[in-house]
Amino acid sequence: MHQLYALIMAGGGGTRLWPESRAVRPKQFIDLFDRRSLLRIAFDRIRPLIPAERVLVVTGERYASEILGQLPELPPENLIAEPSGRNTAPCIGLGAIHLRRRDSAAVMAVLTADHVMHREEVLLQALKTASRAALGGRIVTLGITPDRPETGYGYIERDDQPDGQGLYPVLRFREKPDRATAEEYLRSGRYYWNSGMFVWRADVILDEMARLLPDLRAALAQMESALGTPREDSVVRRAWEPIHPISIDYGVMEGARNVAMLPVDPGWIDVGSWGAVYDESLAKAAEPPPEGNLVQRGEHLALDSQGCLVRSDKLVATVGVRDLLIIDTGDALLVCPRSQAQQVKTLVEMLRAQGRDTYL
Amino acid sequence: MHQLYALIMAGGGGTRLWPESRAVRPKQFIDLFDRRSLLRIAFDRIRPLIPAERVLVVTGERYASEILGQLPELPPENLIAEPSGRNTAPCIGLGAIHLRRRDSAAVMAVLTADHVMHREEVLLQALKTASRAALGGRIVTLGITPDRPETGYGYIERDDQPDGQGLYPVLRFREKPDRATAEEYLRSGRYYWNSGMFVWRADVILDEMARLLPDLRAALAQMESALGTPREDSVVRRAWEPIHPISIDYGVMEGARNVAMLPVDPGWIDVGSWGAVYDESLAKAAEPPPEGNLVQRGEHLALDSQGCLVRSDKLVATVGVRDLLIIDTGDALLVCPRSQAQQVKTLVEMLRAQGRDTYL
Repeated sequence: MHQLYALIMAGGGGTRLWPESRAVRPKQFIDLFDRRSLLRIAFDRIRPLIPAERVLVVTGERYASEILGQLPELPPENLIAEPSGRNTAPCIGLGAIHLRRRDSAAVMAVLTADHVMHREEVLLQALKTASRAALGGRIVTLGITPDRPETGYGYIERDDQPDGQGLYPVLRFREKPDRATAEEYLRSGRYYWNSGMFVWRADVILDEMARLLPDLRAALAQMESALGTPREDSVVRRAWEPIHPISIDYGVMEGARNVAMLPVDPGWIDVGSWGAVYDESLAKAAEPPPEGNLVQRGEHLALDSQGCLVRSDKLVATVGVRDLLIIDTGDALLVCPRSQAQQVKTLVEMLRAQGRDTYL
Repeated sequence: MHQLYALIMAGGGGTRLWPESRAVRPKQFIDLFDRRSLLRIAFDRIRPLIPAERVLVVTGERYASEILGQLPELPPENLIAEPSGRNTAPCIGLGAIHLRRRDSAAVMAVLTADHVMHREEVLLQALKTASRAALGGRIVTLGITPDRPETGYGYIERDDQPDGQGLYPVLRFREKPDRATAEEYLRSGRYYWNSGMFVWRADVILDEMARLLPDLRAALAQMESALGTPREDSVVRRAWEPIHPISIDYGVMEGARNVAMLPVDPGWIDVGSWGAVYDESLAKAAEPPPEGNLVQRGEHLALDSQGCLVRSDKLVATVGVRDLLIIDTGDALLVCPRSQAQQVKTLVEMLRAQGRDTYL
C-alpha cells in the first residue's frame, strides 16, 4: 500500500472573524466551538487515516510556536514555515518538495485548516478513493455537493460520466457566481463547490507546476537541492522572496491535465463569519440554548433577547435585542447583527485604511 | 440679610444607569457629560448664590471620600454622613439639626445631586424668591413647569391665585399618574412636577417633623444634643438605627401647614436612564455628532450605524445597528436599544435576585 500524506495549509486570513481573528492569531487558531481550534479539528479529523508522522503543516513563520503548542503530537520537522505569504500554489509546492524528498512516490492530500465537517468519515472515505486515483497520476480535486445557491464559493463544473471509482472529468472551474447563476448551478446538478482540497502525487503536481508555473518550479528546485543541508534556511529564503503570489486554482488547476473531480458530501462548513460560527455552534449544541442565545465565553444576562452570540470575559447584559453578535476581546468590541456578519470584513478594511495596525 | 444654606442630598440610587452606576459609586458621582459628575454640576450650579462654606452635603458614610475628592472646596465638616439610608425625611432632618446649630435662623434650600438644568440662573432666581418666603415661615416647594405628560414624576396641584411673590397655595400632592391623567394635568396648567427641591427655615421644618413625625423628631433631638461633643458619633448612630425610613413628601409635605409652591422652569432634566444621558448629551453637543453617534468614552468605528451611545475603554466597532446603548465597564457590558433604557432597572433587579452582589 502506498503512503498517504496530509498537507494542512494553516496560513493567515479570516478578517470576517475580527476582532478575535487577528494577523498575529488568525481564525484557525481560535477556539470557535468545542475548545478545539479549527486547526486542531482539522488535525484530529484525518488522524484515523493518516498518522501524525505523515502530516505536514505549512504556515507562516510567526505561527510556528502556536501550531506546535496546539499540535504537540506533530513532529517539529513536519512544520514547514513559509518565509512570507505567497498564496496557495507556492505553499503547496513547498510542501510537495519536502514530501518528495521523504518519499518519492508520496501521495499528498492538500487540506485546509479552517473548515468544519459534520460527517468526517465521509471525507476519510473520499480521501481513500482519491488517493488510489492519485497514485495512478491523476490530479484529484474534491468537489463539495452543494445544498444551496451559495455565491461565496467558486464552483467546479463536471462532465456527465464518472469512471469506475466515481471520479468525473472536470469541464471547467468557475469563479464565485451571482445569485441567479448560483441557482442555475444548483438546479443543473453538475456544479460542485471548490473546497480547496486536493489529492495528488507530489511529483505529479510538481511536474504540472513545471509546465504551468515554470518560474515557481525553478525556485522550488533551488530550495529542493538545499533541503536537509545547513544551507536550507538561507536558500529557501532567497528563492522564496521573488516568487509571484498565485493560487493553486488559477495557477495550476485551470490548466492542469488529467484533472478529476471526486464528489464528496461531508457536511462541509466554511466557518467564514461570526454568523457561520453561530449557526455551526447551534447545530453542535446538545440541546437548544435558551432563547437561541449562545454564550461561547463569559456570561450572558438576557432580558427579552434572542438569537445572540456572546463572547466576552465580562458579564454581558442585553435588553430587547435580536440576533446580535457581541464579540468582546481585549482591545476591541464588535456589535453587529448576525445578518450583517459579512460586513465585518469591511470594518477591518477601514482599520487597515486608517493604518490602525494594532487592531488588525 | 439672612443666610441661605444649601443641603445637597447625595445618597445612593440610579440602577437604570447600570453598569456604570453601582451601589459603591452611584450615578451622581459618574462623569455623564462634560467630565463633571452630576454632584459636581449640582455644587457648581448654586455657587453664584451660596458659598461653599454654606453648602452641606448629606450622604451615606461610604461615599464620603468620593465626595470630598470631587468637591475639594467643601469644608470637610460640611459633609454630613448618614449611618445608613433612611429615605429623605430623616436625611433632611439630620441636615436641619446641623444647620440650626450653626445658625438658629438658617434658611435651607434642599437640593438634589442627580439633575441637570439648562437654565441655572432661573433656579437661582427662584431660590432667592423662595428664601425670602421661607424666612417668613413658609414651607416652599419648587414646582417644575411641565412640558410633557410625564408619567415618571409626582405632581403638585396648586391653587389659582399666587401671592405677591408668585407663590401659590398647594392643594395637594399627586403620585405618579397614568398617561391619561398626566395629559389632563398638562392641559389644566395647575399641575407641576415635584422636583424634590424645597426651601424652608431649619427650625420650621423641624417643628413640622415634631408634629407629623414625632418619633423622628425625638431621635433628631437626641442627636442634636450631642452634636459637637465627643459623643456625637455614637449618639447619632444609636439614635439613627431605629428610625423608620420615610420620604419628605409622604412624611411631611402632604400634611404640612403653610406650604407654598413656587413655579420654576429651569430646563430641569432628570438624568434617570442612559436614554436621557444620550438626549442630554446630544443637546449639549457643540455640533451634531456624525450619524448621531455619541462617544463619551473610548472610540467608535461605525459602519452603517446611527444614534448610538458608546462608553468603553476599547475600540467599539458596530455594523448596521440603530439607536443602541453600548456601555462597557470593567466587569460588565450593557447592550440595549435606547428605547428600552428604562428596562436596565429590571436587569439590576435580576442580578439582585440572583445574589450577584459584585455586579450591583
